[in-house]
Amino acid sequence: MKFSCTLHNHIMDLLAKKHIKIDDLAILVYNSQKKYNPKITIEVSRDAVVHVLAKREVQNIILVGLYLDDKSKTDENMDPYLKAFLDEDSSQFQVDETLSTGIPAVFGAIASSNRGYLDKTKPGIIGKVDSKPYNVFLDDLLAGIVAGAESYIANKESIGVYKEME
Amino acid sequence: MKFSCTLHNHIMDLLAKKHIKIDDLAILVYNSQKKYNPKITIEVSRDAVVHVLAKREVQNIILVGLYLDDKSKTDENMDPYLKAFLDEDSSQFQVDETLSTGIPAVFGAIASSNRGYLDKTKPGIIGKVDSKPYNVFLDDLLAGIVAGAESYIANKESIGVYKEME
Amino acid sequence: MKFSCTLHNHIMDLLAKKHIKIDDLAILVYNSQKKYNPKITIEVSRDAVVHVLAKREVQNIILVGLYLDDKSKTDENMDPYLKAFLDEDSSQFQVDETLSTGIPAVFGAIASSNRGYLDKTKPGIIGKVDSKPYNVFLDDLLAGIVAGAESYIANKESIGVYKEME
Amino acid sequence: MKFSCTLHNHIMDLLAKKHIKIDDLAILVYNSQKKYNPKITIEVSRDAVVHVLAKREVQNIILVGLYLDDKSKTDENMDPYLKAFLDEDSSQFQVDETLSTGIPAVFGAIASSNRGYLDKTKPGIIGKVDSKPYNVFLDDLLAGIVAGAESYIANKESIGVYKEME
Repeated sequence: MKFSCTLHNHIMDLLAKKHIKIDDLAILVYNSQKKYNPKITIEVSRDAVVHVLAKREVQNIILVGLYLDDKSKTDENMDPYLKAFLDEDSSQFQVDETLSTGIPAVFGAIASSNRGYLDKTKPGIIGKVDSKPYNVFLDDLLAGIVAGAESYIANKESIGVYKEME
Repeated sequence: MKFSCTLHNHIMDLLAKKHIKIDDLAILVYNSQKKYNPKITIEVSRDAVVHVLAKREVQNIILVGLYLDDKSKTDENMDPYLKAFLDEDSSQFQVDETLSTGIPAVFGAIASSNRGYLDKTKPGIIGKVDSKPYNVFLDDLLAGIVAGAESYIANKESIGVYKEME
Repeated sequence: MKFSCTLHNHIMDLLAKKHIKIDDLAILVYNSQKKYNPKITIEVSRDAVVHVLAKREVQNIILVGLYLDDKSKTDENMDPYLKAFLDEDSSQFQVDETLSTGIPAVFGAIASSNRGYLDKTKPGIIGKVDSKPYNVFLDDLLAGIVAGAESYIANKESIGVYKEME
Repeated sequence: MKFSCTLHNHIMDLLAKKHIKIDDLAILVYNSQKKYNPKITIEVSRDAVVHVLAKREVQNIILVGLYLDDKSKTDENMDPYLKAFLDEDSSQFQVDETLSTGIPAVFGAIASSNRGYLDKTKPGIIGKVDSKPYNVFLDDLLAGIVAGAESYIANKESIGVYKEME
């Protein structure tokens, strides 16, 4: 089998079908980082989101999360316990968090902290998708992507101790 | 909706359908722990496995992992990239590891180390299920359950520093 | 060697020396949980904090974190790079986060999200200790303890799907 | 303050003082990867180790782990409970695992599995340092570095599904 496009393009298509634009994520990165880094721009934020979305670990987690959200809507034979958790978007389910923590993990410990913050405060597009049905995983995935992009930008800068070493 | 049985019984049924017996897991716990603890028995090992399987975080992860394995066999409309990863049981997929690390996590850092060891060496039932198709998640889930049970037993003992404090 | 008290009492003493009272942590647990659970009390919150502090994994992490904070103040021969990171409380250091994520980890994936939120918003005692020198690890440890206690309480309740299974 | 060398050089010096050579780690990477990838060389393995050691998250964790090992030897005023755990190299301490899991974390979920395997089997230099006193953290750090380097190499290759997408 030959695939018609790379996984990166495929992930972009899947997000577009869920009406997620790169700029919806980039604006969250920009808003959170501008207080630490006055030179940051939307372009830099967008590039950071694209960088996160190009990582294999991230792509595969998105693939699984979106598949589960899709099945929660369309699979009438879904395991009834799993279906009940997903219909309810239960805070006691926790697998959406377990799965999506794999995204910030590859960007360091601060990224994981940031994901927790975004997951509770649900700014912008994260809150928007969270308020709609069949998106149990999607809001967590987006929080993970934004958190990863924030850390990617923060780590490229050399401040404090790192600055003094240069 | 009222569920006909608790999630614990449901998980036991799901494992039974995959021909997994508690004793298949208990023997792995027993074999790994007897060198540290000569008083350990199969009964203690079995109780530890049941204790792990009674945790909500564990049950929900199993529910999702087994659902994905089931769909890899039956869902002809599965996302083609996801299907290809699952058909191949690709070591570069990694979501089976990401998901199943949530099981040992609640039993401490040694449990996570032990899961890694079991995932590479695949003793007993773990290797048996790994050699069959449509079990991408199952072997990782079982490694997580056994690792959790090992840590549960090890942590109940007071040795060394802990012994001296009693 | 025989220890003069258990590790639990020792940890309580160490926290008391840093002017941390159980109730400083319990009030944060109470404030965060009362919106989900109107029956919650300060007593229940305090019990949850004590439960978290009784876990070996938690105790050992606290022991190491407080030791490092103490040495950042007293060890004139500390590695100069490590000393510089700790003096600056650099957000790019990240080891305070890495270490303290071991606390919520044993209480499930939501606890880890909650720790991230507390780490960013720094309510009450967490913010108070963060504003003082030689506390690089302490604020992260406290965020982890509070997050663990929140999850401990939330998981004891049966709501939604879990309620229907009873 | 201006530092006399970058953190990368400093970490190399610290490892050299512990008699750890890059090639001691590269040979472990090479041995584990040659069965998956016949084209692998010692040079590629060495570059992968150096790449891991150049990551800030990795450097900071090493800095803290080696500091704690050093203090376990030299600090007569160390907290007595912490000293007892470190003198005993207790498997129930677990902070060495918690800290060092931050190293493979940034290289994906397979790296974390590999660290667990190396932590149990202790091949080559990992077992050598583990058999000596005052090395509670060092063996775990080395297992994390090697596991990270293994994943770094494995992820650069495109096999299976990834190959078909090119």
